[in-house]
Amino acid sequence: MRESLPLAEARRHVLGRTPALAAETVAAREALGRVLAESIDSDRTLPPVDVSAMDGYAVRREDCAGASIDRPVILELAGEIAAGGQPPATSLSPGAATRIFTGAPVPPGADAVVRQEDTRADGGRVEIHVAPEMREHVRDAGEDIRAGDRVLEAGCVVGPPELGLLASLGRSVVAVHRRPRVAILSGGDELVEPDRPADRGQIVSSNSYALAGQCLEAGAEPIYLGIARDDPGDLRTRLRAGLHADCLVSSAGVSVGDHDHVRSVLADLGCELEIFGVRIKPGFPMAFGRLRGRELPLIFGLPGNPVSAMVTFEQFVRPALRRMQGHRVLTRPVVRARVGEKLQKTAGRAHLVRVRLEYRNGEYQATPTGNQSSGVLRSMSAADGLLLFPEEATEIKAGAFADVEVLDLDVLARAPSAGGSPE
Amino acid sequence: MRESLPLAEARRHVLGRTPALAAETVAAREALGRVLAESIDSDRTLPPVDVSAMDGYAVRREDCAGASIDRPVILELAGEIAAGGQPPATSLSPGAATRIFTGAPVPPGADAVVRQEDTRADGGRVEIHVAPEMREHVRDAGEDIRAGDRVLEAGCVVGPPELGLLASLGRSVVAVHRRPRVAILSGGDELVEPDRPADRGQIVSSNSYALAGQCLEAGAEPIYLGIARDDPGDLRTRLRAGLHADCLVSSAGVSVGDHDHVRSVLADLGCELEIFGVRIKPGFPMAFGRLRGRELPLIFGLPGNPVSAMVTFEQFVRPALRRMQGHRVLTRPVVRARVGEKLQKTAGRAHLVRVRLEYRNGEYQATPTGNQSSGVLRSMSAADGLLLFPEEATEIKAGAFADVEVLDLDVLARAPSAGGSPE
Repeated sequence: MRESLPLAEARRHVLGRTPALAAETVAAREALGRVLAESIDSDRTLPPVDVSAMDGYAVRREDCAGASIDRPVILELAGEIAAGGQPPATSLSPGAATRIFTGAPVPPGADAVVRQEDTRADGGRVEIHVAPEMREHVRDAGEDIRAGDRVLEAGCVVGPPELGLLASLGRSVVAVHRRPRVAILSGGDELVEPDRPADRGQIVSSNSYALAGQCLEAGAEPIYLGIARDDPGDLRTRLRAGLHADCLVSSAGVSVGDHDHVRSVLADLGCELEIFGVRIKPGFPMAFGRLRGRELPLIFGLPGNPVSAMVTFEQFVRPALRRMQGHRVLTRPVVRARVGEKLQKTAGRAHLVRVRLEYRNGEYQATPTGNQSSGVLRSMSAADGLLLFPEEATEIKAGAFADVEVLDLDVLARAPSAGGSPE
Repeated sequence: MRESLPLAEARRHVLGRTPALAAETVAAREALGRVLAESIDSDRTLPPVDVSAMDGYAVRREDCAGASIDRPVILELAGEIAAGGQPPATSLSPGAATRIFTGAPVPPGADAVVRQEDTRADGGRVEIHVAPEMREHVRDAGEDIRAGDRVLEAGCVVGPPELGLLASLGRSVVAVHRRPRVAILSGGDELVEPDRPADRGQIVSSNSYALAGQCLEAGAEPIYLGIARDDPGDLRTRLRAGLHADCLVSSAGVSVGDHDHVRSVLADLGCELEIFGVRIKPGFPMAFGRLRGRELPLIFGLPGNPVSAMVTFEQFVRPALRRMQGHRVLTRPVVRARVGEKLQKTAGRAHLVRVRLEYRNGEYQATPTGNQSSGVLRSMSAADGLLLFPEEATEIKAGAFADVEVLDLDVLARAPSAGGSPE
């Protein structure tokens, strides 16, 4: 077991042991936000034939040479092709034009489309007011996609345009990485569920709710194992149930005694701790392990304090859950922010300082959210980001810059010149 | 009807007519990502009583004056209080200490807690090795929250810490703004669903899939009205169904003829167009209207080209859907990016240029994604953002800066010094 690791090393350890989960095949629409586990090659050419890019008239260019509004060329009207219609089997005759709509197949023999605005219909004939360029307003077969093209690479995150692409290729199912299932355990005789009376000395088990929210936000599926009593039997039953998940997150009871129960019961169940202690504040007593000889579940023992639990989830569990889903980018957006007030600490632990962020005068300003006690969840709720105060640093001067991991993306919309709400 | 508006003015018009939707009461856990429609005041004090912040011993400070590891003070052990346990009814006697665990109530008479590490248990007695400060390691009743405190303001977005806070207040249901339901219509005889054969001249209706994805990503609930044939009767039946939604989005058939059907059928159904045409490319023929005398649904007629449909959704529908949900920030993150190659256009329309973004040498670099034809959905899939090339500008020099609305937030994780993947 490795003890008291620096943040980056602990994260490297965890992520180095985190596999991408296997693929599953889902309805394309359900794939939104998921990561492709297969590359997508096109089995078709789009557009499948040359089509018109405009409403107008398909013409032979040579017929329209020199046409202008003052000297229009007059062509015979030879039918009409609607979008979705079939092109005529015979070639467009010299001196003729076919009425055509956007997306409709260009008839054989035609080599340009003249926009409706550049024509004037006149009974069975049409005046052409411009001399079109070669293939003007014609979209070539295969302009978008050719049969055999690699359209999307495995590892790509499926967003709205990818849903459109999959649809246009006729793909209604697609292989994506499975979402991790995360078992969440609370523990401690002092804890009650939110709908129970919290009498003297009892507190509501809020960690599991915040952690479940963090799981959902990270794309994972939380499974709530409930509150384990300070009793090895109860703990063992619940933890065993959690070992079927891809990831087990225990936010310990609030006493060391409880925590020791978790460790010994986990050891009984075959868990080998690989990390205990990370040199960060909040969140030092973070533990990570796995079952002997098994890749999954990843087992995280998070500190019991609400803020410590959330911060360690952010630093370790969230990137691991993203890796499991096949994401390449595992971290939050980071901005450089000017620190409004002097920050001080002793060397030896990195601090993750909850800060508000404001965009002012062309830069981000970071302000600590007040009480940084790890029991005070309100400071987490008020925070827009976590400022990284590095392990060996002892001071960040007022007015200096620091890196901030952005938790609330809305603050980024207030940025540069075009920024701010559109109203 | 207002025609050919500048982008900002058209957006102001739409958002000025977009209400926040009414509140609905949902299970707290379902509230993740939603906007509170009520402020949350605490009905309780947390911690409810003074509790220990450490595992250790509750003491009378006066008993420990001058204690050190070399000159320990010896106290009589007077019971134990577990987290969740009841404090003794009687005061801690002078010369005595109570074994106490993190989160357990501090007994009356005690005014400090000494950490376990600073003590040595010795049968029925305990050695104290430090002289504690007044109320050291004691968390005061109400340190986190006092009864009556305003904990969350209406308008706040519910994230994981808010779920934790709601749980800790015993709130299992909460009022949030309703999610908008968005009816999506495709139209055109040339369109088929993705699971149908797309023969010569037919194309798969991909817009509705991309738009449904955009709705989901914006927090709204898409309702798919299917593909309307180029027939006023069919169109009318489908559009009527869509008028029960909060928002109706028609991505027209690809021909002007079809579009005209939509307009005339909508007019028949009582829709008054308020905007037709916005000076942007792609996306000029955007229409917005509402039913005479009714606030909802908002009715958007988007251009039929796949990229134009997505871009106009981004610029108009997405901010409106966010406002409906009570969000204050309606726009995407914006970054200043250096433009790699010279961009040119004529004045008169703002261009929304699909670009890739890369963070290099301390700044974002924007590179157009190649073919900017509005038919080519791949360019949208490849884009990390939309670069705003303002209406009156005709050139952006290579190496100059421009604002980019960020569509793929993962690019922001590659930013400053701490940036990049943690591995």
